[in-house]
Amino acid sequence: MTIPERYPSRLLEDAVQAIGSLPGVGKRSALRLALHLLRQPEENVRHFAGAIVKLREEAKYCRICRMISDEDVCSICSDRSRDPKTICVVENVRDVMSIENTGQYHGVYHVLGGIISPIAGVGPSDLTIASLVERVREMTSSPAAIPTEVEVILALSGDVEGETTSFYIFRQISGFGVRVSSLARGLGFGDDLEYADELTLGRSITGRQPFRP
Amino acid sequence: MTIPERYPSRLLEDAVQAIGSLPGVGKRSALRLALHLLRQPEENVRHFAGAIVKLREEAKYCRICRMISDEDVCSICSDRSRDPKTICVVENVRDVMSIENTGQYHGVYHVLGGIISPIAGVGPSDLTIASLVERVREMTSSPAAIPTEVEVILALSGDVEGETTSFYIFRQISGFGVRVSSLARGLGFGDDLEYADELTLGRSITGRQPFRP
Repeated sequence: MTIPERYPSRLLEDAVQAIGSLPGVGKRSALRLALHLLRQPEENVRHFAGAIVKLREEAKYCRICRMISDEDVCSICSDRSRDPKTICVVENVRDVMSIENTGQYHGVYHVLGGIISPIAGVGPSDLTIASLVERVREMTSSPAAIPTEVEVILALSGDVEGETTSFYIFRQISGFGVRVSSLARGLGFGDDLEYADELTLGRSITGRQPFRP
Repeated sequence: MTIPERYPSRLLEDAVQAIGSLPGVGKRSALRLALHLLRQPEENVRHFAGAIVKLREEAKYCRICRMISDEDVCSICSDRSRDPKTICVVENVRDVMSIENTGQYHGVYHVLGGIISPIAGVGPSDLTIASLVERVREMTSSPAAIPTEVEVILALSGDVEGETTSFYIFRQISGFGVRVSSLARGLGFGDDLEYADELTLGRSITGRQPFRP
């Protein structure tokens, strides 16, 4: 089946092109979504568009951790119950939300805004690595500071880009004497040994832990 | 993996909820799309939102065929080279575009705006069937009209709803003496006999055509 190309309406064509510019939304889906919106009450469509424009125009980035935020300092960085000496370095805000949902982490974050990827043309200067280094430097520069009390958790993905970025950051901050850790790798809960990839299974064995019944 | 639920920003949450209200867009995709839009130039995001709002606010429906249109009468109905006596009845504008893309059809259309579906709560009065009947009545009511010159093609889907709708329309217009046809059913080009369903293969056999080498 050919993808529809002749639009009966310029307005429809414009809307389909706009929606189709979103990543992962094909022309056919874009048309389906445009026709869906056309059937909704005008008020709803205005609200839909307004929420998106407002996000783009008004969202800020936390000046400490660079996470998207409604205020100058985000709700996590300004939460006094969180440990400001434990910094979890993540690629983006989705990762923050995933970790927050576990309810297992009580430190703060640093959002890189991406990952080093020569193929995608993303270098260290495109990310917030410099501000992370500055942040760690400040935390360890006062005479009273005890660097080993500061922990930086490199919570990046386990692929080549993630490992590269982790290594790059490690080299930048290791001189400050802070502890640097990374996420535990191994079999997921419920994972079947038979279907685990060799690398993961290998790490699960070498990183084996005392059995706690 | 749990779906992220704690949003670091109310603006982000609003945008995700708006995008997630689209059919077929889950919460996770909505978040991904919202973060994508956040990275785009402000101008692009405003254009994106504007195209959608403009579509909803300014799109009209052709007063003859009920297709979405920028003018009172759509570009197909106002095209003098098309045959106004051949009316192809389709469910929606996507079907119009699909048929137009074949380049094989030179008549006009009638867009129902849906299909009769008791399960979805869609009855004949929710569709543009009355205006189709009126259209056919007008075409055949003048003393000079020759009803058999008018052809109505029921180009609806081959499922129960499509068949029901076709039958309903057929009963409404058969009294005017016009020709009523439906799409040819059979094996698609390139289809493998082995994998064709029985109904389609059955229709391919009973509706067999002279071999034209």
